[in-house]
Amino acid sequence: MKRVLLTGASGFIGRQCIPLLQQRGYDIVGVTIPGVTVDYDVQWEEIDLLAPGQAKALIERTRPDALLHLAWYTAHGKFWSAVENLPWLSMSLELIRSFYECGGRRAVVAGSCAEYEWSSGVCHEDRTPLAPASIYGTCKNALRSVLEAYASASQLSWAWGRVFFLYGPYEGPNRLVPSAIRNLLLKQPASFSAGLQKRDFLHVSDVAAGFVTLLESDHQGAVNISSGSAPSICDIVTEVGVQMGRPDLLRFGANSAGEPPLILGPNESLLGLGWRPRYDLQSGLRATIEWWKARLEAAAARG
Amino acid sequence: MKRVLLTGASGFIGRQCIPLLQQRGYDIVGVTIPGVTVDYDVQWEEIDLLAPGQAKALIERTRPDALLHLAWYTAHGKFWSAVENLPWLSMSLELIRSFYECGGRRAVVAGSCAEYEWSSGVCHEDRTPLAPASIYGTCKNALRSVLEAYASASQLSWAWGRVFFLYGPYEGPNRLVPSAIRNLLLKQPASFSAGLQKRDFLHVSDVAAGFVTLLESDHQGAVNISSGSAPSICDIVTEVGVQMGRPDLLRFGANSAGEPPLILGPNESLLGLGWRPRYDLQSGLRATIEWWKARLEAAAARG
Repeated sequence: MKRVLLTGASGFIGRQCIPLLQQRGYDIVGVTIPGVTVDYDVQWEEIDLLAPGQAKALIERTRPDALLHLAWYTAHGKFWSAVENLPWLSMSLELIRSFYECGGRRAVVAGSCAEYEWSSGVCHEDRTPLAPASIYGTCKNALRSVLEAYASASQLSWAWGRVFFLYGPYEGPNRLVPSAIRNLLLKQPASFSAGLQKRDFLHVSDVAAGFVTLLESDHQGAVNISSGSAPSICDIVTEVGVQMGRPDLLRFGANSAGEPPLILGPNESLLGLGWRPRYDLQSGLRATIEWWKARLEAAAARG
Repeated sequence: MKRVLLTGASGFIGRQCIPLLQQRGYDIVGVTIPGVTVDYDVQWEEIDLLAPGQAKALIERTRPDALLHLAWYTAHGKFWSAVENLPWLSMSLELIRSFYECGGRRAVVAGSCAEYEWSSGVCHEDRTPLAPASIYGTCKNALRSVLEAYASASQLSWAWGRVFFLYGPYEGPNRLVPSAIRNLLLKQPASFSAGLQKRDFLHVSDVAAGFVTLLESDHQGAVNISSGSAPSICDIVTEVGVQMGRPDLLRFGANSAGEPPLILGPNESLLGLGWRPRYDLQSGLRATIEWWKARLEAAAARG
């Protein structure tokens, strides 16, 4: 049985990877910060990966065949320019190197559309310039470049999944889709910018399936994990309002300055590896609305 | 008095920086691996920077105003593709971040011409693509990109000195110029490739002066530390032979495959900051030949 080390296993994407990996027969070591496991039967390792020496010790203790490294600093609104990106880069280098030196062979790591030069709009893996505008994007791109050089000088097999925008169960309640849904469930007005910027949004379970597809393939290098289309933020929120029967509660104001007009990830590479998304935007939002409804009803029933 | 932390202080470039920094009135903390100090009156810190937590502890203990970070993995012939580049990148991120968080304000770090796409030949700071072909160049370029993003989100003042090819006292005895000089001093034949490739060579004391110029300036970003001209390897070795009166002992064979034909660093940016090289190739080689003569005579006198 193949053993996979999954970092960020209790996170937004990571928790969705667990059942997919279980279906494929992996023995899963789930890494999470102490006290934040989720209800799956895997070998939980509750550790602070940033503590000196921890990443290496974890690898030596668990000796995984495969690595799916999703953990990173992701505090909403802060992660773009946070100095915490630096130690996450350093730790990731140590983790991947230890993984390979202890016999690991296939590593898949979470990248980001923030590595691309966003003025390009349409972001192709093979030809769009990599020119990140944030510390977050810079550290992700730096990790990718070193991983690429390291893999080409070793026998490490690697892929890099570039995540675009996502939504779905367990998303932070103040983010775009949850804040629209939660306000409308409470029959409150929900305010947004003009929302003219177009963004490539994908349901988180399809993002997770993209990572598992990459892990199972032998593709080398970066692949977009994206829907391949980019509705406007206004369109997305309006779809939520229409599905919930209360578009009248949506308020659109002025657009924020400096937002790139379009960020879209063509997904032919991932489709070429056999991945198929389960949701389009309509069905994905419907499932997400149902999830929030059930969650809020359960909370209400508990009092 | 300004306190500068100088890493790699006993190294090829670092030791040449010490007298220049002393002349400018700096209080110097010289960092070196244990047991490898050189004979200058500075505050030596003999530590393994790669040991977990050491870089941060060093900064907290010494609290420098300025940082001149030259230390890196440099084992001759091995450093280009060594995995050791990864921990040096990680440690450098920790060092620079700790430096800034403890009140340091001006950081100058050693980069490399290996960050450039070498097929470009002439490497301009402002327009030549950065496309390193080695793990070494990739890790240096990754560090620069993160440092740039970190500095732009903070008050850190920074410069990045891109070193090209260098020669001078205390160079490793098996490298190009020392091996030519030492063989000819011993009246032995010295063998080389055809040496048609052209390289930008600068005397190490001028490289050190370039770093000190950067430290004293408020220039932000990358600057070539280079001679601005690129004789062929054959020309350089022949100049050594002529100066030593034994060009007949030089043997030129076949060129190695895959060597880029030209690597040259225009140095207008550094000249614009007031730096002037003390040596041209002729006078620099002459001084280096004298240095090796004196060294071998002293060794012979000691028996």
